[in-house]
Amino acid sequence: MSSDRLIYLPLGGAGEIGMNMYLFGYGPAGKERFIMVDIGVTFPSMESSPGVDLITPDIQWIAERRDRLEAIFVTHAHEDHVGALGLLWNRLRAPVFARRFTAEIAKMKLEERGQSADAVSVVKPFPETIEAGPFKVSFVPVSHSIPESAGLLIETPAGRLLHTGDFKLDTEPGVGEAWDPELWRAVSEGGIKALFCDSTNVFNAHPGRSEATLTESIRKLVAGAEGMVVATTFASNVARVKTLAEAGIAAGRSVVLLGRAMRRMVQAAEETGVLGGVPPTVTPEQAADIPRENLMLIVTGSQGERRAASAQLSRGRYLGLSMSEGDLFLFSSKTIPGNEVPVTRIMNAFSEMGVDVVDDSGGLYHVSGHANRPDLETVHDLVAPRMVIPMHGEHRHLREHARIARKKGMQAAVAPNGTMLDLTGDRPEVVQHVETGRLYLDGSVMIGAMDGIVLDRIRMALNGHVTVGVIVDEDDEVIEDAWVNVRGLPEKGPSGAPLVELIEDEVAAVLARADRRTVADDDKLETVVKRAARMAATELVGKKPEVTVLISRLVAQ
Amino acid sequence: MSSDRLIYLPLGGAGEIGMNMYLFGYGPAGKERFIMVDIGVTFPSMESSPGVDLITPDIQWIAERRDRLEAIFVTHAHEDHVGALGLLWNRLRAPVFARRFTAEIAKMKLEERGQSADAVSVVKPFPETIEAGPFKVSFVPVSHSIPESAGLLIETPAGRLLHTGDFKLDTEPGVGEAWDPELWRAVSEGGIKALFCDSTNVFNAHPGRSEATLTESIRKLVAGAEGMVVATTFASNVARVKTLAEAGIAAGRSVVLLGRAMRRMVQAAEETGVLGGVPPTVTPEQAADIPRENLMLIVTGSQGERRAASAQLSRGRYLGLSMSEGDLFLFSSKTIPGNEVPVTRIMNAFSEMGVDVVDDSGGLYHVSGHANRPDLETVHDLVAPRMVIPMHGEHRHLREHARIARKKGMQAAVAPNGTMLDLTGDRPEVVQHVETGRLYLDGSVMIGAMDGIVLDRIRMALNGHVTVGVIVDEDDEVIEDAWVNVRGLPEKGPSGAPLVELIEDEVAAVLARADRRTVADDDKLETVVKRAARMAATELVGKKPEVTVLISRLVAQ
Repeated sequence: MSSDRLIYLPLGGAGEIGMNMYLFGYGPAGKERFIMVDIGVTFPSMESSPGVDLITPDIQWIAERRDRLEAIFVTHAHEDHVGALGLLWNRLRAPVFARRFTAEIAKMKLEERGQSADAVSVVKPFPETIEAGPFKVSFVPVSHSIPESAGLLIETPAGRLLHTGDFKLDTEPGVGEAWDPELWRAVSEGGIKALFCDSTNVFNAHPGRSEATLTESIRKLVAGAEGMVVATTFASNVARVKTLAEAGIAAGRSVVLLGRAMRRMVQAAEETGVLGGVPPTVTPEQAADIPRENLMLIVTGSQGERRAASAQLSRGRYLGLSMSEGDLFLFSSKTIPGNEVPVTRIMNAFSEMGVDVVDDSGGLYHVSGHANRPDLETVHDLVAPRMVIPMHGEHRHLREHARIARKKGMQAAVAPNGTMLDLTGDRPEVVQHVETGRLYLDGSVMIGAMDGIVLDRIRMALNGHVTVGVIVDEDDEVIEDAWVNVRGLPEKGPSGAPLVELIEDEVAAVLARADRRTVADDDKLETVVKRAARMAATELVGKKPEVTVLISRLVAQ
Repeated sequence: MSSDRLIYLPLGGAGEIGMNMYLFGYGPAGKERFIMVDIGVTFPSMESSPGVDLITPDIQWIAERRDRLEAIFVTHAHEDHVGALGLLWNRLRAPVFARRFTAEIAKMKLEERGQSADAVSVVKPFPETIEAGPFKVSFVPVSHSIPESAGLLIETPAGRLLHTGDFKLDTEPGVGEAWDPELWRAVSEGGIKALFCDSTNVFNAHPGRSEATLTESIRKLVAGAEGMVVATTFASNVARVKTLAEAGIAAGRSVVLLGRAMRRMVQAAEETGVLGGVPPTVTPEQAADIPRENLMLIVTGSQGERRAASAQLSRGRYLGLSMSEGDLFLFSSKTIPGNEVPVTRIMNAFSEMGVDVVDDSGGLYHVSGHANRPDLETVHDLVAPRMVIPMHGEHRHLREHARIARKKGMQAAVAPNGTMLDLTGDRPEVVQHVETGRLYLDGSVMIGAMDGIVLDRIRMALNGHVTVGVIVDEDDEVIEDAWVNVRGLPEKGPSGAPLVELIEDEVAAVLARADRRTVADDDKLETVVKRAARMAATELVGKKPEVTVLISRLVAQ
């Protein structure tokens, strides 16, 4: 028994905002039993992962130990917490536990990847408890920007842990449970060994605001609008959708929900009963017969996503609806860093149509779902843990959060992905660094981020691509012509002659000089041809392209 | 004379922030004489222009009329106002006028592209006047974030115009002239027909702050630091460099300027005498012998540029210097939208080193160089023009700025790039839409943004690339093998077999079925092979790659 240890290992979400995945283990070293908390995705970018569909943590470490994985707990239904379930569950095959609304989304995630939803079980909030090997886990409701979010109380033989999930301290969240300090005080009674705590907004020095503070300003804005009103927010922010819809109804407008994600989320919220008195909506078809000044659309695409409703409306008609002069478009959302360019593109497209665009720059139409620094301190004080382990943040967030906890005299550790902490004793100790990384869903295949495949794409995008075909005949003689094709390079050299021909000439000249040994060896021949093509392009157009050499060796027939 | 008209035509900078280029013309329609104000670049992004080096306005319209272009006036030395001079001057060949510091940079821009700097003439501020065809132009000093910025008073037979350039209302700018309302009132006397006005910060409702408000907070921050202090800002913000350097000196630190752009700008400022009492600096080599707590580095790369000093320091050593635990890094700058990801990457890299990173989120360490909304209104009131033509802004900025001017009873027009306004009468009238666009400096070649070259690169980055080599023999028979190479695609199909071989098999099967007419025709053969390769990839890995088909037709030798 004395050799048992309690360990923590983040595989995602610690050192980044996105793809959350935290492991807890208990048992003799190397024989611990595990639970996983959250199984999320992060989103690709043209900058670092062009063409990729989704990004998940690399789960190799735990997949190799899956016989010791007791369960997967999902704190809430945001993509960065549940989005990888359908992609990765097959390699883990552990039971999945979540509250009702989250479970509904988790099942969808499995089914949309052609898997059975049977692994998912619905759990009631604390005091209901799931036993998973040496762990006893309860869902502790907390307010966030999606219904039925929860932290987790994790009881272990080495002490009680509290994992906040994502949270804010909102006493009037509109939909879902209010922040309940008495509940959190109650679960903390008897002592919390370690608090694993959301760090997203640690740099924000002001106390967070409630969803309820938006009602008045949104109602006023909608009531004062003359044309059609269109508002966008995160589809999963069901409370906001409700706030917006109620403002529309209050102004005598019919409400339309536009965008698949929006309708799915509201449907799941209705089916699980979390929404409570949803305002009636009309379909886009019905909207066609309603005067535009009596319409309010609530649409997807607050982050500028190309195929979502907001972007479609900025380009023209969408499901028979379109914006025009005098309409109002409201971004009831924050632009996630990295999405500024597409969001701004939409704003300017609407400006060109004469649509008035309102965003959150004045702080009237959006509140964050995460606790700010004073709120974090409130929770530190309330829970009074021995240790604080910051999570759900970039490195700078974790570091700042740890600094705050240490100032209060608590132990703290900055543990980015792959850092295994031993929590058995009085202070967190780093005992191992596990190799972690990212997997890419690319088309229908999962590939490793470090496989070089995406790097090759980035190189082609930066440098262009030249293909050179070389043919070696039956007598091992190179045919001195070369066939060249270019993509992503200027068509002409400085002389005005086609670049393709100029490179063909260069390569032909090199081939004419190549000796027999070079021609006989694919690698040598490729090297010589590649260098010739690259040097020609560099000289002619100042680019150093990627070069593919296709060597065809004819055989006597 | 009655047929003469006064026209305005922005080729860049109106409907975007960047690559400013504004034309003014006077004379009979179709025979106007022109002046150009500013000749700037904008910067590429991986998202929309991967691999591109710089972006300039497409100047075809004015290049075709260059015999009627009298002069180019450059308001200040920022890249988005002067950066395209070296790239485009050859096609315009008009004399260039600028104030001394700006002229110094303009000459560099010409010389670094191998051109003579002789075209550039130095002009003193108002009341000195340059006659350029029907125009009389004076430089009216104004405060901005670079030395010797100026607006332009443009006298024409149809009335007097005032072009603000980029400006803020700073009465203590540190370096360069303070905002001088008396001067601006004086040049406005006698009436201004149209004010062409910076719109960048029109959505900011607070009056702008002075550079002088930073001195105290920066000094305090540097004085309180224990390790090495490193600060980054825009290299051209010479006033800020001075504020930072003085804070270092005041704290007993030796100051090092790191980064080519930083040293060039400070050198130009010294040579033209605008800096006035620059604090002494030491070289990186000398810094090696100075204890780190006595050092302050002022470095390039505030926007996260990969090869600038900030990014280099975040990756390790740079010119023998490196950051370590307990050092302080200050972003005395604003992150330009689109640059959040690389800037954040640097912040987190420093966090991992234990370096404390401070940025402007608290508003203490940076002020903008552009006038906010109340400042714009001050200038509207002071100049009291008949018309306001907003420029230097995205469409939404121009629209908002026009709205504000109209509220004051002034005429206003939203005129994005390519909109020709006739200003002869009492109100601006749109008389023509000129085709405008962007040119890309790509390696050593200028290409058109719509040429498809960069689009091809984006497609390769998103979809991957397949090369298929097909050989047709002397008898016009296709050799049924196909040689395939893939780049940016998974190596294996779902069966585990190499993707290349699976595609080769598919193509070979299609070739075996191809009839003689198809084989004889390059286009037909290419279409068939391309389709086969793309379908195979779609089925095997769920990607629809770009396909290059290289058809080699052997000839009897």
